[in-house]
Amino acid sequence: MIEKLIAKIQETKAPVVVGLDPMLAYIPEQVKAAAFAEFGETLEGAAEAVWQFNRAIVDEVYDLIPAVKPQIAMYEQFGIPGLQAFKRTVDYCHEKGLVVIGDVKRGDIGSTSAAYATAHLGSVQVGSAQLVPFGEDFATVNPYLGSDGVKPFLEVCKSEDKGIFVLVKTSNPSSGEFQDRLVDGKPLYELVGEKVAEWAETCMNGQYSEVGAVVGATYPEMGKVLRKVMPKSFILVPGYGAQGGKAADLVHYFNEDGLGAIVNSSRGIIAAYRQEKYAAFGPEHFAQASRAAVGDMIADINQALENR
Amino acid sequence: MIEKLIAKIQETKAPVVVGLDPMLAYIPEQVKAAAFAEFGETLEGAAEAVWQFNRAIVDEVYDLIPAVKPQIAMYEQFGIPGLQAFKRTVDYCHEKGLVVIGDVKRGDIGSTSAAYATAHLGSVQVGSAQLVPFGEDFATVNPYLGSDGVKPFLEVCKSEDKGIFVLVKTSNPSSGEFQDRLVDGKPLYELVGEKVAEWAETCMNGQYSEVGAVVGATYPEMGKVLRKVMPKSFILVPGYGAQGGKAADLVHYFNEDGLGAIVNSSRGIIAAYRQEKYAAFGPEHFAQASRAAVGDMIADINQALENR
Repeated sequence: MIEKLIAKIQETKAPVVVGLDPMLAYIPEQVKAAAFAEFGETLEGAAEAVWQFNRAIVDEVYDLIPAVKPQIAMYEQFGIPGLQAFKRTVDYCHEKGLVVIGDVKRGDIGSTSAAYATAHLGSVQVGSAQLVPFGEDFATVNPYLGSDGVKPFLEVCKSEDKGIFVLVKTSNPSSGEFQDRLVDGKPLYELVGEKVAEWAETCMNGQYSEVGAVVGATYPEMGKVLRKVMPKSFILVPGYGAQGGKAADLVHYFNEDGLGAIVNSSRGIIAAYRQEKYAAFGPEHFAQASRAAVGDMIADINQALENR
Repeated sequence: MIEKLIAKIQETKAPVVVGLDPMLAYIPEQVKAAAFAEFGETLEGAAEAVWQFNRAIVDEVYDLIPAVKPQIAMYEQFGIPGLQAFKRTVDYCHEKGLVVIGDVKRGDIGSTSAAYATAHLGSVQVGSAQLVPFGEDFATVNPYLGSDGVKPFLEVCKSEDKGIFVLVKTSNPSSGEFQDRLVDGKPLYELVGEKVAEWAETCMNGQYSEVGAVVGATYPEMGKVLRKVMPKSFILVPGYGAQGGKAADLVHYFNEDGLGAIVNSSRGIIAAYRQEKYAAFGPEHFAQASRAAVGDMIADINQALENR
């Protein structure tokens, strides 16, 4: 799957991913009103608003970008109907030719991790049928439980041509609480990075591995180090824009070949119409505001890459 | 919620929890055949089999135990229908008066962790309605992202009278890969344990805190240390039975008051009919086999506690 992602990045000239993390507060009133009119102020109504919001944005941006990253928590908070909207979004993005990174941050022990890998990247056998539960292309994985928790994902990556991004250094302010602690003189995130590099070697697909890493845009110095620790891994970079990460800081997340990283923006794109810069679009043209914001983000990152 | 859990433990004299982690391989043929006859070899058929299996076991064991712990991965692998079976199981266990620990191992950054906390322990506002997405009583939480990822859960614990168990030392063989690494001479799990103790102080409810910890039965020496590091936290102990943890090893997970730990068994209970010891029940009486296994487990742990 990493080869498909690379091909899409080269085709769009856009090493970016749009985070589909719809909070109800981001969704314009007219979208919510229509959904609530049909389904009431219910979980179904909220899920319908989320789905209509996503669809409008995807319709406006799919030709500009290689991939989307729906954050499942934002759907899970609306229970079963929310997860139906998640699945619908995954399927719709596939119809539009997008690579779908399920930001699920799952991770557990052996057979349980295998069930998560099946849920998000694989297929499950029921009697004689082989069925696809959610069917994303990539999933994010939490490494705290060690290799036992990651290996079942590697198996599915190999058998189903899928990929993962393992959390190494997250973008949030308190990520250092455990991730930065020194073990034998090295921060824990670097040890995790070294493990990612090992896992990556077992899952190569062309020049890059199906095993990537998550490294926050908000820690560029660490990104620079981790780029070298995990040479075969794509880095999925959250934290650009709304969280404070700047394009100039992100060039070190890329390899010399111009590949090796994909930068995510969520709020900055899907709620662009709420920013002063894109306010002229108004809530009624929220999706066009997202398109403009995607264009600006791509230009910003490509400019930084040219200037490095 | 910890007070309710304690009251139920005292009432049943059983510091145990039954893990409802249904793999299709554990479900007797007649249950699967009936479900597939109605819904086909589909995700719906698998979910129906899971639900009928769970219900039969819960009907047989609910009066013996304080709590159940459904592992959501085992449901998520059957997609939306699987998660419907999860929700149905949670609701049914509540009807039967059981405390429900959602083994979801979620954890993310700020607003995303807040969405997970809402999904599993809280309620979500949709227009003027306040709705419950999944409604478990406790959830397990992954600490790799630090306090940012845990605090939103603490907020919901306080406002909704719920609780969490934070992963400290997991029961799997490779848990030591990161968790045992020494930071300033102390293993990482101990640092996480110290953080749990801090978080616990902010969420007291009677003698104990709403913030508990997960410490595997397979590492009794570490359990002994962690018991002292987190005096106000209940320890949820996976790994008894099928994974190799023995009752005699577990006494140190309890405090002097006989409280402070709750021991989980999943496979050992729900698939008891497949063990030689309970084979006489046969697949047709699988739920009664589970009842016998629960009785034996309670006796085993109480015996060990008396002998300490």
